[in-house]
Amino acid sequence: MTRREIKVYQNLMGENEKWAAKTRSVLAEMGITMLNIIGSPGSGKTAFLEKLAKEIAAEIPFAVLEGDIATTRDAERLTEKGIPTSQLLTNGACHLEAKLVHTALLDLPLDTLRLVIVENVGNLVCPAEFDIGEHAKIAALSVTEGEEKPVKYPLLFTEAQAVFITKVDLLPHLQFDIETCIQAIKQINPTVPVLQVSPLTHQGMDECVSWITDFVIHE
Amino acid sequence: MTRREIKVYQNLMGENEKWAAKTRSVLAEMGITMLNIIGSPGSGKTAFLEKLAKEIAAEIPFAVLEGDIATTRDAERLTEKGIPTSQLLTNGACHLEAKLVHTALLDLPLDTLRLVIVENVGNLVCPAEFDIGEHAKIAALSVTEGEEKPVKYPLLFTEAQAVFITKVDLLPHLQFDIETCIQAIKQINPTVPVLQVSPLTHQGMDECVSWITDFVIHE
Repeated sequence: MTRREIKVYQNLMGENEKWAAKTRSVLAEMGITMLNIIGSPGSGKTAFLEKLAKEIAAEIPFAVLEGDIATTRDAERLTEKGIPTSQLLTNGACHLEAKLVHTALLDLPLDTLRLVIVENVGNLVCPAEFDIGEHAKIAALSVTEGEEKPVKYPLLFTEAQAVFITKVDLLPHLQFDIETCIQAIKQINPTVPVLQVSPLTHQGMDECVSWITDFVIHE
Repeated sequence: MTRREIKVYQNLMGENEKWAAKTRSVLAEMGITMLNIIGSPGSGKTAFLEKLAKEIAAEIPFAVLEGDIATTRDAERLTEKGIPTSQLLTNGACHLEAKLVHTALLDLPLDTLRLVIVENVGNLVCPAEFDIGEHAKIAALSVTEGEEKPVKYPLLFTEAQAVFITKVDLLPHLQFDIETCIQAIKQINPTVPVLQVSPLTHQGMDECVSWITDFVIHE
């Protein structure tokens, strides 16, 4: 019984890997970079992408694949900013899987794009476990969530190639020590770049734009 | 192949239900109420329980089962407040399952308790899918997460018997309309009580304490 259960999990994971590999092939062929932004509900992922549209859309044409459990609200927000956006609904599942991402990717106007950003389902845990064919994961952590979250939810911070600490405009109103948070991140992933950002006040946006631009250029 | 996969999922779920039923038997026998608090990372679940200790521990003796993926930090915080607390580590899993809860429950000093509060893993999605034998789920939603989260993550808000909107002390610093949030909750669950609370300023603590006390007394 136990052996049969293990087999099934291996099959499911293999299926996901297969679609992730197909996505990587398409991205390589078209010269497109794919980023996978992961963070809790309300960590400011969509607000960041709205702001990013103004900053880099002219230089680096990009589209967004917007992962949610239900509703098309986030895709509507981004479409209003002029970003080609598709909504990926998981209908209850807590993360995006590679097959859904692959299907949506093929429907994008790929020959006009240099970058695809996947905004994963709001969840600090499960999305980090599923390879969707991305070149890098970015962890989004809001200052309202507490300094110790990286050690409490280590997988995402281990896998991330950049950490964006969001909503830093709220720091004056919180009992949140940013140095303690950065130490917690470095404890899990000593070399990862940590950027502080507030899309609302623009603080740190230039640094995030630079990180993304450099990553796209060197990928 | 497909049939075998379905069978396995049924077995796992059946296994979980079996342990949840055992927990319900123990709780009934001992006259103990169990609450399951679910919310995103950083939604203020532990801070609420720290405050609750001062408010009701004398009247309603309670223990906490503290669910986390890694670290014993939250259990340490609650133990410092004099609350009997056990740490349940999922070692990577995104939710608590009934067997782990049951095992930990049996190790508590049950004959001294009237209430057990389970603080689930920080995650607005998966914990709502797993029955752990509780009498009620409480949804914790922070004002920093955005008004629309109940419609984007509907399962928890459908299942919850109360919603605590937390960190309301931050409202003056946020673009968050509490009435819009309450409407979003009522759209998903028209009759659920919605309470506003800030453990930091004590605002709304009395109403939350009353709700919990009434629920324990009438259960």
